Amino acid sequence: MAESKTATKGASGVAMEGQGSGVASGVTILHGGDLDGARLAFPHAPEPWVDLSTGINPWPYPLPPIPADAWNRLPARGAEEGLRAAAAACYGAPSAAHVAAASGSQALIQLLPRLRAPGTVAVLAPTYAEHAACWAGAGHEVREVAGLDALTDGDGADVVVVVNPNNPDGRTLSVAALLGLAERQAARGGWLVVDEAFADADPAASVAGFADQPGLVVLRSFGKFFGLAGLRLGIALCAPDLAGALRAAIGPWAVSGPGLTVATAALADRAWIDATRRRLTAAAAALDARLAAVGLRVIGGTSLFRLVADRRAAALYRGLGEAGLLTRRFERQAEWLRLGLPPDEESVIRLHDACVRILAVTDPSAR
Amino acid sequence: MAESKTATKGASGVAMEGQGSGVASGVTILHGGDLDGARLAFPHAPEPWVDLSTGINPWPYPLPPIPADAWNRLPARGAEEGLRAAAAACYGAPSAAHVAAASGSQALIQLLPRLRAPGTVAVLAPTYAEHAACWAGAGHEVREVAGLDALTDGDGADVVVVVNPNNPDGRTLSVAALLGLAERQAARGGWLVVDEAFADADPAASVAGFADQPGLVVLRSFGKFFGLAGLRLGIALCAPDLAGALRAAIGPWAVSGPGLTVATAALADRAWIDATRRRLTAAAAALDARLAAVGLRVIGGTSLFRLVADRRAAALYRGLGEAGLLTRRFERQAEWLRLGLPPDEESVIRLHDACVRILAVTDPSAR
Repeated sequence: MAESKTATKGASGVAMEGQGSGVASGVTILHGGDLDGARLAFPHAPEPWVDLSTGINPWPYPLPPIPADAWNRLPARGAEEGLRAAAAACYGAPSAAHVAAASGSQALIQLLPRLRAPGTVAVLAPTYAEHAACWAGAGHEVREVAGLDALTDGDGADVVVVVNPNNPDGRTLSVAALLGLAERQAARGGWLVVDEAFADADPAASVAGFADQPGLVVLRSFGKFFGLAGLRLGIALCAPDLAGALRAAIGPWAVSGPGLTVATAALADRAWIDATRRRLTAAAAALDARLAAVGLRVIGGTSLFRLVADRRAAALYRGLGEAGLLTRRFERQAEWLRLGLPPDEESVIRLHDACVRILAVTDPSAR
Repeated sequence: MAESKTATKGASGVAMEGQGSGVASGVTILHGGDLDGARLAFPHAPEPWVDLSTGINPWPYPLPPIPADAWNRLPARGAEEGLRAAAAACYGAPSAAHVAAASGSQALIQLLPRLRAPGTVAVLAPTYAEHAACWAGAGHEVREVAGLDALTDGDGADVVVVVNPNNPDGRTLSVAALLGLAERQAARGGWLVVDEAFADADPAASVAGFADQPGLVVLRSFGKFFGLAGLRLGIALCAPDLAGALRAAIGPWAVSGPGLTVATAALADRAWIDATRRRLTAAAAALDARLAAVGLRVIGGTSLFRLVADRRAAALYRGLGEAGLLTRRFERQAEWLRLGLPPDEESVIRLHDACVRILAVTDPSAR
C-alpha cells in the first residue's frame, strides 16, 4: 500500500480570513494545450504546431447553426433543461433530475470541495492534478493513494476521487469495484467522485447509469470526446437531491447560449457518437502501431491519448518540441510521455520522422 | 432606518452535512427574460413576443469572426490574459492583475459568499435578489437595509453589497460615499461589493478606477451593455491579491473560447461603446416620453431599463402580457413595473397601443 501526502496543502486564506494570496495551493499545475508556452520554449520550431499535449478529439463535432438569440438573450430555463435531458440520455443517467451542468468539468472540480466542511480526501494517484489541488485549496486534508486497497484499508476518507479511465495511464476500475466503494462512502456520509472525462469511448466502464446511488458523483467532460474544449461544458451526474444542491450552488445561466445549442444537438447525435467511437479506437491503434514501429512502448491510455514509458522521454519531449510537436510530460514520472491523436496524415509523418531522428541520436539509457 | 430580515435564511445543508436538498434558499427568485414562462402564462398572446422584462441592450455588439480554434481548443492562457487587459482598460481598472473573469456575473455572485467564513452581510435593498439569496445560502446572516445610513449605524456588517446604479430603481450612490464605505469595510477586514451591472452607460458613477482599494470588489456584467447575455461573462475588479484568489477559486478556462474572442474585441471597441452609450440614452429618453404620453410615471431606472410606479401595475403587466409584451413586475412592490428598451419602432407602437387600451379600461385606483 503506497501512499504519500500531496505537496498541495490547503491554503484557506480567503475562506477563513476574507483576504489572502491564494485559494488553491501555490503549486502551479502543468496543463496540456499550452501552445503559447511551447512557442516560448521552442522559438525555432516550425509552424504550424501540432498539439499532441491534450486528450481532445481532433475531429470536432460539426457546429450546427447558432441562432442570434443564443448569443443575445439569457439562456432560457427550457434550454438548460433540454441540455440536461440530452446529457442524461447520452450518458445513461436515470433522468435530467440527476444532472447538473457547469461551465466545464473543471468548474465542477473547483466547486465540489466548497460544498463540504473540511474533511479527509483520498485521490487515486497519479492522476489529473487539479483534483488534489482543489480539495486541498478548500481546506481539506488530501492523501494521494496508489491503489484501491489503500482506499479501503483503515479508516477511509470522507471523499474518494477516482479518475476512470485514469489520466494519463488509462487504468480502469471495474463498475463493481466502484459501486462497492460508493456504497461504503455513502454509509459514512461521504462521497465517491468518479471523473469520467475520458469514458466516452468505452461506455461499459461508466457508472453514470448508477447516478441514483447516494454519495456517487460522476463527472463528464463534453469538450474532450466532442472535440469542442473551448465550448466549456461539464456535467455532474448524481442523486437528485445532490444534483439540485449542485445546480443551486452553480446558479442560473452557467453555460453559454451557444454552448447549450451546440451541446444539446451533439449529445443527441447517436450516429456521430457511434462513428466517432470507432474512429478514435482505430486512430489510437494506428498511433500505437506507429510508436511501436519506432521502438516506443505504450503502457496505457485511452482512445483519446496514449502513454509512452521510455528512459528517453525527456529527450523525446525536447526533440519533438523543436520539431513543432507538443507532447505532455510529467514532473513526477520522468519516463512518461503522453501523446494525443495526430489530426491528419501529415502530422503522423511529422511525428514518425521526428521520433526516428531523435531516437537515432539519443543514448537509450539517457535521461 | 428601515431594515428587515430577508426571507432567504441560509440553508447550508450541503456545506455542513455533505448532503442536502438545497444550497441556496428555498425561495424561487423571479427573473426577467423568461419567455417560456410567459408563453405558458399568456397562451393567447400574439407572436413574436417583445421581451421588455430584462435590462439587456437590444442592439447587440456585432459578432466578429470566431476562429475554429476558439471552439475546439481549451482557451489559451494568453487569451484570458488578453481579455483581462481589455476589461481593465474598458472599465478603467488599474491593471489586468486587478481582474478576474467568470462565466457571467451571476457566477461571481454565487462564488463570493463561499470565499469567506460565515459572517454578517448587509444588502442595500430592494435590489437584485440573488445577492441576498447567495450570501444567505452560503450560511451568512443577511440583513436588507434601505439606505446608506443603515449601513454606517452601529456595528455595520462584514460584507456590504450595493448595486450601483441600482436595479430596478436606478438609485445611484456617489463615488465618494462608496469609497468612504469601502474604507470602513477594509478597516474591519470586510468587503464592499459594488455590483455595477448597469454602470456602463454612465462611467462617472463607477468605482472601477479605485479597484486597488483593499476590500472593494466591483462586479461588471458584459452581456447587458453589449447585448450578448448568452455569451456568459462577468468581471470582478479588485486588489490583485483578492483578484488572484478569485481566479484561483474560479479555476482555469471558466470563460468559453468564443466568449473570449467576442468580448476581447467588444471591450476594446471604443467607437461602438461611445455610440451605444448615446443610443441607449436617447432610447431611454424616448421610452420615458412614450410612457409619460400615456400617463405613466417613470420613477427611476438606468438607460437599459425604466421603472414605472402606478397603482395599475398589475393590470398593466397582465394586459401587456396578453398583447405579447413581457415586462418585469416585483412581488414586494406591487405598484412597480420595469420595462427594458423596445428594440424597434414596431415594438414601440405595440407597447404604446397596448398601454392606451389597458389604461382606458382600468380604474386608476385598481390594484
